[in-house]
Amino acid sequence: MKRFRFTLLLFALALLQIGFAADPLLSWKDTASKAAIVKFVNRVTTEGSMDFVPPADRIAVFDNDGTLWSEQPMYFQLAFALDRVKALAPQHPEWKDQQPFKAVLEGDMNALAETGEHGLLELVVTTHAGNTSEEFARIVHDWVRTARHPKFGRPYTELVFQPMLELLAYLRANGFKTYIVSGGGIEFLRVVAEELYGVPPEQVIGSSVKTQYEVRDGKPTIVRLPEIDFIDDQAGKPVGIHKFIGKRPIAAFGNSDGDFQMLEWTTSAPGVRLGLIVHHDDAEREFAYDRKSAFGKLDRGLDEGSKRGWTITRMKNDWRAVYPAVKR
Amino acid sequence: MKRFRFTLLLFALALLQIGFAADPLLSWKDTASKAAIVKFVNRVTTEGSMDFVPPADRIAVFDNDGTLWSEQPMYFQLAFALDRVKALAPQHPEWKDQQPFKAVLEGDMNALAETGEHGLLELVVTTHAGNTSEEFARIVHDWVRTARHPKFGRPYTELVFQPMLELLAYLRANGFKTYIVSGGGIEFLRVVAEELYGVPPEQVIGSSVKTQYEVRDGKPTIVRLPEIDFIDDQAGKPVGIHKFIGKRPIAAFGNSDGDFQMLEWTTSAPGVRLGLIVHHDDAEREFAYDRKSAFGKLDRGLDEGSKRGWTITRMKNDWRAVYPAVKR
Repeated sequence: MKRFRFTLLLFALALLQIGFAADPLLSWKDTASKAAIVKFVNRVTTEGSMDFVPPADRIAVFDNDGTLWSEQPMYFQLAFALDRVKALAPQHPEWKDQQPFKAVLEGDMNALAETGEHGLLELVVTTHAGNTSEEFARIVHDWVRTARHPKFGRPYTELVFQPMLELLAYLRANGFKTYIVSGGGIEFLRVVAEELYGVPPEQVIGSSVKTQYEVRDGKPTIVRLPEIDFIDDQAGKPVGIHKFIGKRPIAAFGNSDGDFQMLEWTTSAPGVRLGLIVHHDDAEREFAYDRKSAFGKLDRGLDEGSKRGWTITRMKNDWRAVYPAVKR
Repeated sequence: MKRFRFTLLLFALALLQIGFAADPLLSWKDTASKAAIVKFVNRVTTEGSMDFVPPADRIAVFDNDGTLWSEQPMYFQLAFALDRVKALAPQHPEWKDQQPFKAVLEGDMNALAETGEHGLLELVVTTHAGNTSEEFARIVHDWVRTARHPKFGRPYTELVFQPMLELLAYLRANGFKTYIVSGGGIEFLRVVAEELYGVPPEQVIGSSVKTQYEVRDGKPTIVRLPEIDFIDDQAGKPVGIHKFIGKRPIAAFGNSDGDFQMLEWTTSAPGVRLGLIVHHDDAEREFAYDRKSAFGKLDRGLDEGSKRGWTITRMKNDWRAVYPAVKR
């Protein structure tokens, strides 16, 4: 009898495991957020249904900072830029008295935070002007392999959100084309997006500096110029989407007011649409911040999101796991 | 015996037809151009070969005007812009004395031709500023259905090159992603590219005006501004490719010196690469022009192309057909 009960237990565990394995959104708890995602995907992929959307139009756009990976205590690309300022400072003695470099070298984060994504871009612009795009990619690549997050002591690339990785894969398995639409730098992101998210370079949209085609010593190159070309934030996001994709997405995922217009643009078109905002309310597993945060401020989205039919995902309540299990 | 011979003839014809049907590049004669294309594709798609390129990196870029469709006696988009000027002239009495509108209304094509693609963009910029992108697309769509080519009396959309349609399909069948990289306007081209060439909007790169996100009467829109954003011509083509795709193509197809840098950028990378220039030397079936043409000037490409290992395709010599057979 004992033996039978043990067998039954094993059997139950096996069933449970099969059940888990079959769930593509395993890290999402069975709350309203997950239900909204699954319902949306079922509606737009059911052939013959009025809500059916052909695969070519299944465009899903994702913000990156705070949506696909963490953005506290500062944007990861800002950490990169600060490290670059420190690395290059010996060659630039004038930076000691020059903002924003002075603030960086003195560690005055408040002053820096106030400059927002524009300030970050300014730093990246200056510290990498004149580099070819290949050189820049190599610098980013090297940094990503060695830098560690100040709170978790882990590589930044491990601080991606497991539920969002599952969501990306789930959408792609359902015929969606997944794009990243980030306020961060397009050339920075493209170095990591494919490996981290399975998103190829041509599906990454971001802020950019102007570049120039130049034949250097007989070798054609793309050179980064010290001039901002495009800021892919707020009202810039629909503009970037229109420019790069030329189609209106049917699903948009963000976490801050910088994503407001992207969600508005996506969800105000006729037909079934999905807008989802990740609310960071999990100080224990990640960070808790919203209306008053220097990075990833979420204010208008909290006030208007639900009224507009957007799904508000609460990290604490809706996510079973935050980061992927560490492979050691 | 007679019956047998007839059966044999039928059999031979059937075999011939099978032979034809199996050739994806039917409209290319069996000359060096076709051989170069087939050899290149075989090399990069043969698994285990040193020259193998994984599908994700099989990027092929095509110029549009003069490469995928005709561009004489003027760029088709210029014909569109001229028609727009005429249509809008009653609302703009001042255009009678204002260049470039004056030239258009007086039919002074020489003056206009000299302004090149910049002049064309200037016209498009002015005549369509303030339109939303959706309105603009509708205007283009309506024009394309009704306008006729002055020499052939056929819709412009029928003046695409059959051999290039076959080439696009052949490359895609071999795992390539095909992009259009045009000096023409991105929003103009995207209206027709999918239907004509099977190239979706997100794979069309072109010149652009700045746009702005605007909520008009509660309805979010993208509005075209009277300001040039990007000129996707000459050295702008590698810049556009880098910006939109973020990868270096392995094959590039053009027909004018405006494509020189795109071919240079593509073919100067290590590995097997294909650069091909279409030389318009067929006054009978299409047009004959090169070094001195106002549109699609080909001069440096003729001098340096062969030395750089590019394939020069002569329309007259290398193409069995120019345009698709007309469906009546």
